[in-house]
Amino acid sequence: MTNPGADRVKSVRALSRRSVRERTGRFLVEGPQSVREVVVHRPDQVVDLYLTAEARTRHTDIVAAASAAHLYLHEVSEDVLAAMCDTPAPQGLAAVCRVATASLDEVLAQGPRLLVLLTNVRDPGNAGTVIRGADAAGAAAVLVSDASVDVHAPKVVRSTAGSLFHLPLVTGLPVEQTLARLRAAGVRVLAADGVGTTMLPDVDLQPAHVWVMGNEAWGLEPQIRDLCDEVVRVPIYGKAESLNLAMAATVCLYASAGAQNH
Amino acid sequence: MTNPGADRVKSVRALSRRSVRERTGRFLVEGPQSVREVVVHRPDQVVDLYLTAEARTRHTDIVAAASAAHLYLHEVSEDVLAAMCDTPAPQGLAAVCRVATASLDEVLAQGPRLLVLLTNVRDPGNAGTVIRGADAAGAAAVLVSDASVDVHAPKVVRSTAGSLFHLPLVTGLPVEQTLARLRAAGVRVLAADGVGTTMLPDVDLQPAHVWVMGNEAWGLEPQIRDLCDEVVRVPIYGKAESLNLAMAATVCLYASAGAQNH
Repeated sequence: MTNPGADRVKSVRALSRRSVRERTGRFLVEGPQSVREVVVHRPDQVVDLYLTAEARTRHTDIVAAASAAHLYLHEVSEDVLAAMCDTPAPQGLAAVCRVATASLDEVLAQGPRLLVLLTNVRDPGNAGTVIRGADAAGAAAVLVSDASVDVHAPKVVRSTAGSLFHLPLVTGLPVEQTLARLRAAGVRVLAADGVGTTMLPDVDLQPAHVWVMGNEAWGLEPQIRDLCDEVVRVPIYGKAESLNLAMAATVCLYASAGAQNH
Repeated sequence: MTNPGADRVKSVRALSRRSVRERTGRFLVEGPQSVREVVVHRPDQVVDLYLTAEARTRHTDIVAAASAAHLYLHEVSEDVLAAMCDTPAPQGLAAVCRVATASLDEVLAQGPRLLVLLTNVRDPGNAGTVIRGADAAGAAAVLVSDASVDVHAPKVVRSTAGSLFHLPLVTGLPVEQTLARLRAAGVRVLAADGVGTTMLPDVDLQPAHVWVMGNEAWGLEPQIRDLCDEVVRVPIYGKAESLNLAMAATVCLYASAGAQNH
């Protein structure tokens, strides 16, 4: 494919719009790191894989993994790839993928010990970084409320650095019902919020729990905080007013991982 | 001031260039959060404070702190402020400030227990986020190598969320000599690097130490790693390949803060 104006190129490019992703159930994965992770970990999600001649030579590991998974590779020109992608420099590779989320029932059936729930998280970079942090800390899944950013948006996908394909995602969750179901399943509900009175080092993080994260600017809604078992604050030892959302989530998740793994 | 084309406006705008910052020893602080922090914590650094009529009404706390510090407020139009600033929405406030870095001698004279050294950190957002994390974790200072991003660049200043004015910064440091001086002062030198064989939870973080952070893409240079007392890895419990630099630094710094404060 060498014509950036082709209908197929336009239909791929349209996946940068949320409405198109929701209608088609597909999203675009850009760049070698993310494409490698979906091809290796979730080849069942890949619908079409596009690469330039140069990328075919350079990323032989991805080409081999794609072949092993019987994925067809479409060779495209640099111009076509750039016209398909949200990022100006997709580095030779992109994949149209099926959205594949899990249900809360499926996640709970596994007896999860560590979860994170994003409520009202709006910034794509923050959401992606929390997903990456949750993966690194060994969380069983990432839960995303109905009022949060679309985790299949290009900027979220990029900032997860492949973690989107490493652990189950449950999206579109109504927060109050979700907290009730988690608690019924024996999962402690811990709000991470700067207004908390319980300090992170004082919380017993060995039992199964979920970290509930609020909006990056205004934190958790009071009525959601009231539904949590504890409202936990990451201590500030210096003069900073707060940590940003992604940093706070990572510190909490790593505290949990430390308690559960050592 | 209402003329966005005035020489004074141009000379403020020019501070977005590193060469101008280095020649003048000044930099620009934009937006209410950062301006508040410099006015409250480091009024000695403020040369000129610019605000719109609307900001004067809205941010009475900043105006009061500026008055208490005998800082003169220049009222400017929205157009003038926008023409001065790097960000398209400075939210009514900006301050031209003097660069005020500390020396390594001054920092060492305080007997620091926790430090971070950025070597080859190039991304402004990462550098700013590490400075914010260091502040939150109660680090005594942030040390920055000669090969790192200019920490007075607009994007770094913004992403520190005011932490730039909360703790001493030492910039332009040659890495090898700095490590030698730190060690001579009794500060353990811990590299944070994904190739490390010592796991973070296994390190004794009570004694005074410095976290040495490398480049966001390729980590620490081998010859620098070899000069460190330990090369420490943040454990990955899931399938993520790594944490990003700012997350790894924050996890390390909070592990240190936890060990030193509880």
